[in-house]
Amino acid sequence: MKISREKWSSNFSEWFDWVISQAEIYDYGRYPVKGSGVWMPYGFKIRQNVTNLIRKLLDDTGHEEVLFPLLIPEGLLKKEGEHIKGFEKEVFWVTHGGEEELEEKFALRPTSEVAITLMESLWIKGYTQLPRKFYQIVSVFRYETKATRPMIRVRELTTFKEAHTVHETFEDAAKQVDEAVEIYSRFFDILGIPYLISRRPEWDKFAGAEYTIALDTIMPDGRALQIGTAHHLGQHFTKAMDYKVQRADGSHVHPHQTSYGISDRVIATLISINGDDHGPILPPVVAPFEAVIIPIPGKTDEDTEKINRYAGEIESTLKTNGIRVTLDASEDKTPGEKYYIWELKGVPIRIEVGTRELNAGTVFLKRRDTLEGKAVKKDDLIKEFRNLEDQISADLRKRAWEQFRERVKRFQNLDEAKKFLDNRGGIAEVPWCGQDSCGLKIEEEVQARVLGAPLKPEPSGNCVVCGKPSTNILRIAKTY
Amino acid sequence: MKISREKWSSNFSEWFDWVISQAEIYDYGRYPVKGSGVWMPYGFKIRQNVTNLIRKLLDDTGHEEVLFPLLIPEGLLKKEGEHIKGFEKEVFWVTHGGEEELEEKFALRPTSEVAITLMESLWIKGYTQLPRKFYQIVSVFRYETKATRPMIRVRELTTFKEAHTVHETFEDAAKQVDEAVEIYSRFFDILGIPYLISRRPEWDKFAGAEYTIALDTIMPDGRALQIGTAHHLGQHFTKAMDYKVQRADGSHVHPHQTSYGISDRVIATLISINGDDHGPILPPVVAPFEAVIIPIPGKTDEDTEKINRYAGEIESTLKTNGIRVTLDASEDKTPGEKYYIWELKGVPIRIEVGTRELNAGTVFLKRRDTLEGKAVKKDDLIKEFRNLEDQISADLRKRAWEQFRERVKRFQNLDEAKKFLDNRGGIAEVPWCGQDSCGLKIEEEVQARVLGAPLKPEPSGNCVVCGKPSTNILRIAKTY
Repeated sequence: MKISREKWSSNFSEWFDWVISQAEIYDYGRYPVKGSGVWMPYGFKIRQNVTNLIRKLLDDTGHEEVLFPLLIPEGLLKKEGEHIKGFEKEVFWVTHGGEEELEEKFALRPTSEVAITLMESLWIKGYTQLPRKFYQIVSVFRYETKATRPMIRVRELTTFKEAHTVHETFEDAAKQVDEAVEIYSRFFDILGIPYLISRRPEWDKFAGAEYTIALDTIMPDGRALQIGTAHHLGQHFTKAMDYKVQRADGSHVHPHQTSYGISDRVIATLISINGDDHGPILPPVVAPFEAVIIPIPGKTDEDTEKINRYAGEIESTLKTNGIRVTLDASEDKTPGEKYYIWELKGVPIRIEVGTRELNAGTVFLKRRDTLEGKAVKKDDLIKEFRNLEDQISADLRKRAWEQFRERVKRFQNLDEAKKFLDNRGGIAEVPWCGQDSCGLKIEEEVQARVLGAPLKPEPSGNCVVCGKPSTNILRIAKTY
Repeated sequence: MKISREKWSSNFSEWFDWVISQAEIYDYGRYPVKGSGVWMPYGFKIRQNVTNLIRKLLDDTGHEEVLFPLLIPEGLLKKEGEHIKGFEKEVFWVTHGGEEELEEKFALRPTSEVAITLMESLWIKGYTQLPRKFYQIVSVFRYETKATRPMIRVRELTTFKEAHTVHETFEDAAKQVDEAVEIYSRFFDILGIPYLISRRPEWDKFAGAEYTIALDTIMPDGRALQIGTAHHLGQHFTKAMDYKVQRADGSHVHPHQTSYGISDRVIATLISINGDDHGPILPPVVAPFEAVIIPIPGKTDEDTEKINRYAGEIESTLKTNGIRVTLDASEDKTPGEKYYIWELKGVPIRIEVGTRELNAGTVFLKRRDTLEGKAVKKDDLIKEFRNLEDQISADLRKRAWEQFRERVKRFQNLDEAKKFLDNRGGIAEVPWCGQDSCGLKIEEEVQARVLGAPLKPEPSGNCVVCGKPSTNILRIAKTY
């Protein structure tokens, strides 16, 4: 069977909107608040599986889940000047309670550094309590003035997984940033999402941070998408709020902090990164259903009944073995209509059961990614299913990385880099002397964004702006 | 060992504030937004276990989890007049985005009926799609003008588990309300929380509902607490928003709806209902840790090391068997200090391991509820542990229900009922003719709240106000 990727690759934005609405993942644009979407039941399950996965990774590395209030008083938010400057144009303000005007207005949290620092200062007084790592999974709000896009640029970001940590020294916090990047790398590896890790340029780091490390992927339309960030906050917030901890020698110092987060964008990426004109292809690890069973009616009602019973047995065998499976026994749709729906929902394996399978004691397993199928004996089902699932996961990961690597290219001059980005998109890498001024010049000339530089310098040739020997490369892309 | 319940019962409010702060459950009153608390790691785990339990009960009965935006435009919220009248004094309003005034102000959801009805009207067009049951677990906001209380009366209610359903007929919706009450009853039964089910009086039903069924418990101070409600919404919202579905005969009708919810109060109750002067006693089913292991140091460092190793073995045996356990191996605290902390945290079983246990190949299991202990052989640990846990769960449930039943009393005249409520609190039941006017008179005379009447009428004697023969009883209590 020919796999068409026409719509998916050349008309990605339309494809994405079609998938999230028709597969009943995320209802966007119909709820009357700009930049807000509704997670529908099927989409909610994807979101929940993704959330549980990151939760496990964070729990296993000593992070403690908490939940902070949504509202941040204006006075508290403004305690750290540099930080609020980065956000103030994007803050939603609550000014009234009932018919009364509030004495002090409240922000809907755009991010939680100040709120969490305040409570940390009450909870953590000395070095024996350090390090401490918290996280919460909450909605954050940005009054975006740019064009909004479902899951990617929204005003209510519903699944912000934000971690906040406290450390005695700068070095400890730096190590924590490294750990964060490792955790996120593992997370995206499990999901089969390719990424590059870059240190964001000075002019694009998080408001209030010493430095920011980011993970970027490339969407099917060639635009880069930031999917995770980790910030070394140094003492910015602890100094602004004069929060000190006692050290072993009895002295008091402002502790160092980090924060890092992942947003709804991970789900947008998951849906987009492996797809075709039938819809997305979800990795088994987070697919709401790892398989759908579709019974093919027989020639007589009696045959059909036998087939349905057989399908029911297959379902319970799979469920008993802990496999998330659904049996689509609805009578108002043909098998073909069901294929269409479940392909659109991205279920990685389809199990067809008809007269032939019933008589032979087999089931027919069809891969969503390659649309190839094979018959397996009922007795071997679990083993074969697991093998096929592993194969699909590995192939999805491999294909995604191959596509990704093809779209990351190194250039020795800006014109070629610009042509590459204008033409089919991706990430261009160019030699760079290390000066901010040259980086800014690159952004201006290429009309694209500098994502930053690799953590381990990769000098190669001369700076594309000033011609001095490069100390590293800079990555450039058209971004979301 | 004597169990003191002095503080818990006579000074409950102080006890509760002490527990939630000292056991690091919920930091309240220090975050600078009135009526907002912070869920600390230990409290978050209780909250999560409770949430997972209700999630399972809802999933198993065909409810689908979704997530709606927080913000509701004013115009949408005001579509149902009666509903908004019930809430308008309590709504927080977002009026500004950045420095701009918004064209239309947004409410922070006080509850989600209108938002969900709007999307249902886009998703569900005909009878074949009915019934449909959604739920979400979200923060809701009330600008409370009454005195706020941690978890019990807050401005940000962080764990609202709200369900919303759509049905073809009034009767179908009425059956759904019954199902909701059954689910909630099962939920509170699992948690060992006693309750009475009452139909709220007309003047106290949910704004926009045909009728409201509520579950109330009694807190240690004798005040009743509403812990769950289910509303038959009839066609109020579907008519207000002119949302129709097609029936089998081709005609179009406004569908009927229900909504039901449980709040943070379930956690307040869980913490309060079984307690003593050492702290709360959590039921094993939702305790973050079912047991804590405390090693008792030996006479020599070598002995201590052996004991610690033994404690580690016990820990891994329990964990392998899926028991949530923590080993408190901290060296800066004495065993006595550890006992104090973990009793305060309400861990249902303490496991002591010292020289005696090491030599005898036993462990010492101590019940949090009775403070009784017994030695069990290491080989029998899992069996003995499970038995003890079942015993504790059963005893907690039994004790809570006994306390509860003692506090529900029937009276034939209002004076006695008033004396009872003024004296030690609880729920008083009095005969009632069924007229609202007599019910309102009761509230006025007793200076307490009418909780409502049992679903199955229990006529007994004459109405305490008008003297006519009763058709049912009314329940009265001082409430939170």
